[in-house]
Amino acid sequence: MKPNQKYELFKSHLGKIADLGFASSVLGWDQQVYMPKNGAKARGRQLATLSTLGHELFTSLKLEELLKELSEDETLTPEQRQNVLLTQKDFHRKKKYPDSFVEELSLTTSEAFGAWHEAKSKKDYSIYKPLLEKVMRLKRQETELLGYENHPYEALLEDYEPGLTVQKIDEVFSQVKNQLFPYIQKIISRPKPQNDFLLKFYPKGKQWAFSEKVLKQMGYNFDSGRADDAPHPFCTTFGPGDVRITLFSDEHEFTMMLFAAIHEAGHGLYELGLPMEEQYGLPLGTALSLAFHESQSRFWENNIGRSHSFWKANYPELQSMFSENLGAIDLDTFYRGVNLITPSLVRVEADELTYHAHIYIRYLIEKALIEGQIEVADIPTFWNDHYEQYLGIRPGDDSEGCLQDVHWSYGSVGYFPTYSFGSFYAAQLGASMKKEISNYDALVETGNLAPILSWLRTKVHASGRTFNSEELLMKTTGSGLDFRHFMNYAKEKYGKIYGV
Amino acid sequence: MKPNQKYELFKSHLGKIADLGFASSVLGWDQQVYMPKNGAKARGRQLATLSTLGHELFTSLKLEELLKELSEDETLTPEQRQNVLLTQKDFHRKKKYPDSFVEELSLTTSEAFGAWHEAKSKKDYSIYKPLLEKVMRLKRQETELLGYENHPYEALLEDYEPGLTVQKIDEVFSQVKNQLFPYIQKIISRPKPQNDFLLKFYPKGKQWAFSEKVLKQMGYNFDSGRADDAPHPFCTTFGPGDVRITLFSDEHEFTMMLFAAIHEAGHGLYELGLPMEEQYGLPLGTALSLAFHESQSRFWENNIGRSHSFWKANYPELQSMFSENLGAIDLDTFYRGVNLITPSLVRVEADELTYHAHIYIRYLIEKALIEGQIEVADIPTFWNDHYEQYLGIRPGDDSEGCLQDVHWSYGSVGYFPTYSFGSFYAAQLGASMKKEISNYDALVETGNLAPILSWLRTKVHASGRTFNSEELLMKTTGSGLDFRHFMNYAKEKYGKIYGV
Repeated sequence: MKPNQKYELFKSHLGKIADLGFASSVLGWDQQVYMPKNGAKARGRQLATLSTLGHELFTSLKLEELLKELSEDETLTPEQRQNVLLTQKDFHRKKKYPDSFVEELSLTTSEAFGAWHEAKSKKDYSIYKPLLEKVMRLKRQETELLGYENHPYEALLEDYEPGLTVQKIDEVFSQVKNQLFPYIQKIISRPKPQNDFLLKFYPKGKQWAFSEKVLKQMGYNFDSGRADDAPHPFCTTFGPGDVRITLFSDEHEFTMMLFAAIHEAGHGLYELGLPMEEQYGLPLGTALSLAFHESQSRFWENNIGRSHSFWKANYPELQSMFSENLGAIDLDTFYRGVNLITPSLVRVEADELTYHAHIYIRYLIEKALIEGQIEVADIPTFWNDHYEQYLGIRPGDDSEGCLQDVHWSYGSVGYFPTYSFGSFYAAQLGASMKKEISNYDALVETGNLAPILSWLRTKVHASGRTFNSEELLMKTTGSGLDFRHFMNYAKEKYGKIYGV
Repeated sequence: MKPNQKYELFKSHLGKIADLGFASSVLGWDQQVYMPKNGAKARGRQLATLSTLGHELFTSLKLEELLKELSEDETLTPEQRQNVLLTQKDFHRKKKYPDSFVEELSLTTSEAFGAWHEAKSKKDYSIYKPLLEKVMRLKRQETELLGYENHPYEALLEDYEPGLTVQKIDEVFSQVKNQLFPYIQKIISRPKPQNDFLLKFYPKGKQWAFSEKVLKQMGYNFDSGRADDAPHPFCTTFGPGDVRITLFSDEHEFTMMLFAAIHEAGHGLYELGLPMEEQYGLPLGTALSLAFHESQSRFWENNIGRSHSFWKANYPELQSMFSENLGAIDLDTFYRGVNLITPSLVRVEADELTYHAHIYIRYLIEKALIEGQIEVADIPTFWNDHYEQYLGIRPGDDSEGCLQDVHWSYGSVGYFPTYSFGSFYAAQLGASMKKEISNYDALVETGNLAPILSWLRTKVHASGRTFNSEELLMKTTGSGLDFRHFMNYAKEKYGKIYGV
């Protein structure tokens, strides 16, 4: 067999695994969007079967042998070689998990999810605590299974931002603490902008129509995707040419639906910009990391969607659509209203600055848990004390405190930092973009976002997993992550709004 | 390993195959209902992968060995034994297909489908002919691969109605020809009932609302299913507790959406009545045949949905909903309108009596093709001559003649008879039901269809594939298929409407 045929076999094998993964995504999407309630039980087992079959194909002897032969094959193109190397890396990571561990984690997290749900609704941490203890014990065990050089937490980070170190996170968050937090204090000492007009009645149909118009302006193509109603907004990929988002509306609050739509479409545009068709099922056809994915969604949501230029383009239409609520509100008042900075207890409702305090506290807890510095029993007090310290507010109960997020129940530890890093990457990308697209503001002000999408496609999307985040930032912006870009972004924007 | 554990392994293996099949159904449903157009290519490969994996699991050595051991296991319950025997039967049938044949058939039918589509829209049979020749050559080859006792066509029938013979079909259709066709002639010699009121403007939203109301009256449970808009009405199963239908509406014709909805929900109620949860993936959890499936859909569509009692219950609401169209139309006029008998060229638009002439002609063609009595080149003339002979009308071109149906392009040969047999089974079931449910008409007249569904669940649905159609009819009605029930049904109903 010629070497090229081996690569084709490899490609077709990974293609099948991708087929199973995308099929799972369709089933998962339907589960959240359309499935009638009595379909839940069978859907659960169908998803489990697809996942098991995908796992079996990925950890198969056949793939192991193909990888071995291809890794020694000197006739491969550089691109082919990289697909082989990245797959090998994923393969070896997957192989480190004993079946018994995978099963125990899966059973535990499924129980923990139920317990979390009950605990949150009953505002009773004690229901969740024993399960979370099991999860955390398994996550510590996982760091040993996977191995690490400097810090066990890094073994887990690898799933969300390959190559990210605890040292780097600490370094970045010390700037968050020393530069961003004092800046937030300055802002909140100023008079609060008006935003009551956002809390009027905004009928769903009209919110939906406006959101769709904005999605089209962003370049989200409804021939390659669609938006459906769901209890939570998310983005999901079914293959090249089919990347969907879901929308959730609150008729008594205007920003929820629109900014989530922009956020999810930001994820969607990244997926649609990946070379997924040519590299179907291969690493180079996929996103480089969850953190970088978040840079795309947050860039569109905040750097574009909450910018003055964007609203200069879009506010007149919004104002006439909802004239009963916004007729007397001018552009600048509206703009300040959607950029209100104020400490709050719930992460998903936080503004784009105080948000990072929420993440920082979660990071401190995760790291301390993995290090064994604190135990699961200590979380509520640790959480509440730190909210008081950094945000000046204290949760009334754990449902608006340490029970608010589902992530840990799933076993997602190391995920939270990606939310902040995404914003910081976004600011750095935005700074370069503004330099390279000469009439940037003028374009946004006229609703012409095509050059921005085009810049992101060329500089970020097209390379898939070719580079890691630091490498891609280096290539695109001339340096690895530099938190100063975020501070500059924040000061330039909020300096004008708050006069600080 | 204890015998019971072997059976559990068998059950779990078939359960996985079912998971893959149901996952395909979800992907197929989405493809027709919601998928954006650029998703088509990847969806095609995902469906192919799911189908290949399912086929590999079904024809695996593992299953073969389990079947061998279980077939000799005397500790199985009778039910378990039957699941093993039926699976063995399916297994041996699947094993008769060489991979090369499956691949050639799949490639050919996929090409033939494209050619059919083009030929139909261009009204040019010559585009389709060479592909259909290939398909029919393969179908003849298939009869040899599968083997048969009396007639090669029976090898193909097995997929749609196991045990059905050419002798039986000929016997039944000779009665159709000698009894039903003359009766139709009598009917159409009478004055045509008025039905112009069905062709007015019926807004989609209101049609949908009325259809949903009727579905609920039938006992179709929206917690275990849903209805979505699609270009063609169909029913699809995703597992116990999730059986969906699609609806298609024509705003300028009233009957299309409603009767298709009742028809598809009839299929859906059968699926929901199967013991699919306990027998997940096992033969006893599935429908006994396509023909019997059709008996359920046609029973609800025609025997219930087009009955006078049904409209006595439902016409007042319909009339007030569409008072601008129906205000001056009384119940009896409406009832006669939705039961107009008139020869037509297109099967899917045919009434419940002339429909069987359409099927009879297709059956004659299929049988003659498989026997080698005619060739694909002869179809158009054969078709047109027989339409003239049996329906008194001749297609103007092949698009309303032999190009109207997609079935042959898929390689579905032997399928058409199930449409007629379904109606004949329905009439026979209906006759027994009327005897056993004492106040049948009074129940239907008040919209209480629950005892009817309950009768079907107990007598038909609950046994899954335990019996074949003849056995089940014997058990439920006291005899195998007897066409006289259909003639009695037709004469009782249309005798009153047309006075014949």
